[in-house]
Amino acid sequence: MIIPGKYLLFLGNVAERLDAKTACGLVDWAPERCVGQWRLPSCGIDLGLKDMSFAEARAAGAATLVIGVTPFGGAIAREWIAPIVEALGAGLNVASGMHARLGNVPEIAAAAKTSGASLFDVRAPGASYPVGTGAKRSGRRMLMVGTDCAVGKKYTALAIARDMAAHGMTATFRATGQTGILIAGEGVPIDAIVSDFVAGAAEALSPDNDPGHWDVIEGQGSLFHPAYAGVALGLLHGSQPDAIIACHAAGRTHIDGYPDFILPDLERCIEVNLGMARLTNPDVRCAGVSINTSRLPASDRAAHLRRIEDRLMLPCFDPVATGAEALATYIAANFD
Amino acid sequence: MIIPGKYLLFLGNVAERLDAKTACGLVDWAPERCVGQWRLPSCGIDLGLKDMSFAEARAAGAATLVIGVTPFGGAIAREWIAPIVEALGAGLNVASGMHARLGNVPEIAAAAKTSGASLFDVRAPGASYPVGTGAKRSGRRMLMVGTDCAVGKKYTALAIARDMAAHGMTATFRATGQTGILIAGEGVPIDAIVSDFVAGAAEALSPDNDPGHWDVIEGQGSLFHPAYAGVALGLLHGSQPDAIIACHAAGRTHIDGYPDFILPDLERCIEVNLGMARLTNPDVRCAGVSINTSRLPASDRAAHLRRIEDRLMLPCFDPVATGAEALATYIAANFD
Repeated sequence: MIIPGKYLLFLGNVAERLDAKTACGLVDWAPERCVGQWRLPSCGIDLGLKDMSFAEARAAGAATLVIGVTPFGGAIAREWIAPIVEALGAGLNVASGMHARLGNVPEIAAAAKTSGASLFDVRAPGASYPVGTGAKRSGRRMLMVGTDCAVGKKYTALAIARDMAAHGMTATFRATGQTGILIAGEGVPIDAIVSDFVAGAAEALSPDNDPGHWDVIEGQGSLFHPAYAGVALGLLHGSQPDAIIACHAAGRTHIDGYPDFILPDLERCIEVNLGMARLTNPDVRCAGVSINTSRLPASDRAAHLRRIEDRLMLPCFDPVATGAEALATYIAANFD
Repeated sequence: MIIPGKYLLFLGNVAERLDAKTACGLVDWAPERCVGQWRLPSCGIDLGLKDMSFAEARAAGAATLVIGVTPFGGAIAREWIAPIVEALGAGLNVASGMHARLGNVPEIAAAAKTSGASLFDVRAPGASYPVGTGAKRSGRRMLMVGTDCAVGKKYTALAIARDMAAHGMTATFRATGQTGILIAGEGVPIDAIVSDFVAGAAEALSPDNDPGHWDVIEGQGSLFHPAYAGVALGLLHGSQPDAIIACHAAGRTHIDGYPDFILPDLERCIEVNLGMARLTNPDVRCAGVSINTSRLPASDRAAHLRRIEDRLMLPCFDPVATGAEALATYIAANFD
């Protein structure tokens, strides 16, 4: 799935930034792809981009209107349909990361047919994938694994790819979820793949590459999540990582939304992931620890990261607050 | 997915029993559901059932024509379409475990619409499943796990359910694959579920039950398979087994079709499965070992099973050659 950029970000009528996680992720990580925003009068947020009409966005180089919001329930609101139809008429493609499919709205399907534009449902696999082969691929791979879902695996992978590039290494962010796919412009919605093909899809996501090249792969789920561990394991096996990065949100003690499930400590998270990862890459190592410290007082952050670094003897960083330079340095020194 | 019985088994024009695994499984495990067989003149096999016309089968109580063959490629052969259309006209439903969907053949779709009969694509999930909750359910569960795929997990579960019933226990075989679903008349095609919902589908497959009741769950994949481990893990977590049964095919040394992947020994298979299963049931135990000894000389079988039994201190049986009475006795004595 390859989505043409640049983007005009559609915010509809959402009231809060929390409902615009996809748009915020794009502004944070792919500002060069975002030419402007489009809002209904009742919209309660502002990304700080220029408000543009669809024609203005086209003139500014936009190729795709991105539905950057995922309100609760994941449906396409009635009042969004007319502007989406108008955008298609102006020659924009439309991309959405919502569960609801764009093409299932008759007016949208008809307008796309008329204009010849494409509809991208980022959560719908765009291709069928083969069964995994387990065959070793050239190039290097790094996979984010987590003590839980939603601990910062995507931001970690994006920060690592950026900071490895700044360090003179060749690295590519590989997206496995809807926001990551929109940021990268391509990727595989791994949690929407039929289970028999998850490892094969992960193999396709990080194909053979140059010996010194690193794929930095966004994780999905967690081996410790009662609903999503299977997704995480298929991605782990298909990715064949040379390095894993253990990701955790400071202060979280239980699986989010599952109060009966206590999180593992980082040692156990690393041990279990390495144990399972060795099936497809016996040389896998843990290369670092990423901590989302946003719930900690800023004054506690440095000491918190330092304690974990001393305990695990691995670089420990917060992808937002400190960046991943320490990890890039470690990779350069420890993986030849 | 609940498929109305009894069945007329459709053999088409296949040449070999290997291409009729589904039909053979039905004759072996659900003979009371099979009223007869239907063959084209060029068919090379005979299940030993009465050859019947569609009208005769209806009169004998058949409700569904089961496509009992899965020739290489999984397509619906051109010469099968006319008889399938005729069967629908005679009032039979049609069920298939092939990858190709019955309803995608226009003549078949039209005939089903005319007759009002149902088409069952056993490999297509008939319902959407919720995300797994990890919540503990009442009743007992036993799951087959394997050193590899295709080691005899289905036959093991069927033999255990039969022999527990003979032992006076209440046990239900729970099907997770196409042949198992046709044998049981219901089940969940677990490897066809979108990966985010595998654990939830497994939870739905073995719902709350009486305290003394056992669900005996057919396994899928293997934690040691480079393509299918994720499926196996989702099923393991959603099943929340009280007991696992380790299944292996004697003489097999590598993952079937993956010569670079050496099978674990039974100890490691049990240890890794128990370690991962504890996430959703900390009390899980291994209750026995099932060995498919069909590749061994019959004279070596008893000693082979005995050696494993002595080594692991668990009942060890071949579901076809010895049956699972020893396991039923062990369960009755060791799980109150």
